[in-house]
Amino acid sequence: MHAVILAGGSGTRFWPLSREQAPKQMLNVFGQDSLLIGALDRAQQMLDAQACEGQIHIVVGQSLLDELRNHVLAHPKWGSASINYIVEPAARNTAPALALAAALVERCDEDGCIVMLPADHLTEDGPRWVETMGVAIDAAADGSLVTIGLVPTGPETGFGYIESDSAHTKQTDSVSSALPVIRFVEKPDHDTAVEYLSAGNFYWNSGMLVARADAILTQLEEAQIAHPDAPSAAGNNDMVKAARLLAADSRDEAALEDFKQLAKEPFDKAALELSSKVKVVPTSIDWSDVGSLLALEVLTQPNERGTRVIGQGVDVDSTNTTNYSSHRMVATLGLHDTIVVDTADATLVAAKDRAQDVRLIVDELTRRGAPETKQSQTSKRPWGSWTMLTRGIGYQVKEIEVMPGQSLSLQKHQQRSEHWIVIEGTATVEIDGQASQIGPSQSVFIPMDALHRLSNNHDSILRIVEVAAGAYLGEDDIERFDDQYARITGVEA
Amino acid sequence: MHAVILAGGSGTRFWPLSREQAPKQMLNVFGQDSLLIGALDRAQQMLDAQACEGQIHIVVGQSLLDELRNHVLAHPKWGSASINYIVEPAARNTAPALALAAALVERCDEDGCIVMLPADHLTEDGPRWVETMGVAIDAAADGSLVTIGLVPTGPETGFGYIESDSAHTKQTDSVSSALPVIRFVEKPDHDTAVEYLSAGNFYWNSGMLVARADAILTQLEEAQIAHPDAPSAAGNNDMVKAARLLAADSRDEAALEDFKQLAKEPFDKAALELSSKVKVVPTSIDWSDVGSLLALEVLTQPNERGTRVIGQGVDVDSTNTTNYSSHRMVATLGLHDTIVVDTADATLVAAKDRAQDVRLIVDELTRRGAPETKQSQTSKRPWGSWTMLTRGIGYQVKEIEVMPGQSLSLQKHQQRSEHWIVIEGTATVEIDGQASQIGPSQSVFIPMDALHRLSNNHDSILRIVEVAAGAYLGEDDIERFDDQYARITGVEA
Repeated sequence: MHAVILAGGSGTRFWPLSREQAPKQMLNVFGQDSLLIGALDRAQQMLDAQACEGQIHIVVGQSLLDELRNHVLAHPKWGSASINYIVEPAARNTAPALALAAALVERCDEDGCIVMLPADHLTEDGPRWVETMGVAIDAAADGSLVTIGLVPTGPETGFGYIESDSAHTKQTDSVSSALPVIRFVEKPDHDTAVEYLSAGNFYWNSGMLVARADAILTQLEEAQIAHPDAPSAAGNNDMVKAARLLAADSRDEAALEDFKQLAKEPFDKAALELSSKVKVVPTSIDWSDVGSLLALEVLTQPNERGTRVIGQGVDVDSTNTTNYSSHRMVATLGLHDTIVVDTADATLVAAKDRAQDVRLIVDELTRRGAPETKQSQTSKRPWGSWTMLTRGIGYQVKEIEVMPGQSLSLQKHQQRSEHWIVIEGTATVEIDGQASQIGPSQSVFIPMDALHRLSNNHDSILRIVEVAAGAYLGEDDIERFDDQYARITGVEA
Repeated sequence: MHAVILAGGSGTRFWPLSREQAPKQMLNVFGQDSLLIGALDRAQQMLDAQACEGQIHIVVGQSLLDELRNHVLAHPKWGSASINYIVEPAARNTAPALALAAALVERCDEDGCIVMLPADHLTEDGPRWVETMGVAIDAAADGSLVTIGLVPTGPETGFGYIESDSAHTKQTDSVSSALPVIRFVEKPDHDTAVEYLSAGNFYWNSGMLVARADAILTQLEEAQIAHPDAPSAAGNNDMVKAARLLAADSRDEAALEDFKQLAKEPFDKAALELSSKVKVVPTSIDWSDVGSLLALEVLTQPNERGTRVIGQGVDVDSTNTTNYSSHRMVATLGLHDTIVVDTADATLVAAKDRAQDVRLIVDELTRRGAPETKQSQTSKRPWGSWTMLTRGIGYQVKEIEVMPGQSLSLQKHQQRSEHWIVIEGTATVEIDGQASQIGPSQSVFIPMDALHRLSNNHDSILRIVEVAAGAYLGEDDIERFDDQYARITGVEA
């Protein structure tokens, strides 16, 4: 058994909460942990806790690898777990990503079965989840590709559907046995969704998949042979070939180049829709694809006008409106059917019926080169976290939290000096080999080019304000000499 | 000739741009200078430049006095002007405020004529303005109360109207001679406004007034005698009596108490509507009372969907919507008839037809004790300005700009230490009698209880980041020992 978590999503539909360096899977707006940590928890529930060493794989792009690893390293439980990071040579959608993961699993475990989980969905865990996966794993033993279908609770038009050959018979309270799949259908219109609901043999496509690694690769290959003219099948053989070469040697230049040239294809189109060996396990677990900012509405009950205030905002007289603010005061007055999502450096105000189109805003901001699409305000680190408080011409100010017993890397900067002011706790500061301790309201100056390290050698949290001053303040002005977390590729602290 | 500028308005309808300590008259969103500085400029145009010493009076409440004086002192031209600040013992609306100003003018200049200007209107200056005032000043010579009426350009329902006995005949291109006033009417409904427009003898009430000081006081007294039962006339005699006593001695305890007990009355109700000696000068100067946030729309032309983006925001597909952001990224998507106004620490999103009700938001925030109604983010000082960048638990961070040759006061704090990091320029820092100079990227630490002063003795601007750390960070933790601007009452720097 292997869990493969696809964490390559950029989550542009969740802007401004999500950013390039903090996509939806890394947000913890739905609970204490992020959606990614939730996926790891669910993966672990299925795997034998004793045997899960080497069985959990996260597929991620190179540009997000550092930030995502830091995110996992900062978690109290998952920080010390053994996780295999599979780096996509390029973002080519789920078919190439899954092919690469399957090829890697196949090499080390020729009977390996993969449970593929999206990293950015909100899904119930616990007994019903485990039972659902158990049915799917059994059904995958014969080489089938087994999907998980949610039993519809309404005529939803925002999801794709899976049609099975018959209506499900519940095996238990919530889970049916696996059924053969007739076809996958795109998001339907309302009338069609009503028909699907009453027909009883249509299920929401959850995007989860259970299959043997060799079956995934074989089905991708066979899909092309059986449907040589299907546009989506083009290049499947190359995909599997490139994946297997990369699995054998991740630095194989030719294979890397081949992978980068693959068409961007979802696995649904490249294999599931073309294969005859596809099953669906109907289930009734709670699930949301967190497909738009409207998903935030699960966080609180609306008032008598259908309006929700989530966070510290205030509303007067708005109807069917959601006012979400994480840091600042947001006031809404007399609005209708509107969603407001506020973060420290950016705010979105959208008509609810346009919530699916937030990517248009991200596209426009990207076109302008606006920084608000890239960097998150808060970034987790194995030693704690930092939050960008403010940026001005020639300076930037961060709040830095260092957990007890932790240290930032030993580092130097060529183009900025730093000033650390302790707000809470005691800092151990090493500058050019000289160590000192500074307490609350004390400060220390780190000149440009000085070799320095910040540590918290005490039992309580350390909070400092860092003012960096200089003409260039990019995160890449760092030279790292020693790091207790063995980070080499990262650019930050 | 005396100019009396009423600057007591709290401007709650302009939140979040306006705050208690930065009301509408102090905002410079409509140009380089604030509305108050604009009023000072117009006042000066009417007065003989050589003779305006002692002729300009600003009426303001005690709680705003420091901030408003600093605002004027920071202005390159008005900072060195002689301005008489008339402090209202309590905010009692325009009738008591104007009575106090008239009593003061009457004492030093018994033939004094007052031009009363609201501090928070946007008004054309230049020749047409001077000509209008000239006609009004002439008309006031006989003891009349002379109002300025704007010739309507449409059936406006947001203003009060002044009805004259006949339609105006233009004296010049834009200004008519003064006409007797029949009555003042409240904001009309649309049909009535259409009638007023076609009748030709109705004018928008600009709130400006020209009258002899003695006429103002006499008319207030006579209004009560002639209309003893009019609720709005009650207490007029007391008002004039209290105003004259306060003008004679601003520390007269009994008069102060009497003033504080006066009813809150606008001058329109207390005198203009009850007097038979009222005239109107119809004019066509450009004018706006800046009555709601929709006034921001004058700043830019709408796009083909009627939408305006003012500042650094972005819009996709909104109609008849205004997106105003001064600091941060605000994205609007698919909205209709909505106004968004963003500031560093607070954002308002309102249906345009509710723009007049922004005070409901301010009321609610005040009820909660929210800081976002009180302090402005940026505050002008005679030596430059400061901007609050961020506040956290145990610290706050400001950017401070000190103009060449200027100094903050010599001061100390009991409950916070300060860290100054120079970003641009050279700071001269005095700590407990020791002076030093620090340049860009250098920093200095000011312990609690240390006597300190920051100066800019160089020719270019000085910019520093100040990090204050301590358990209590209120602006009132300051003890001031020496100040080159002779500020005594102020609490800040």
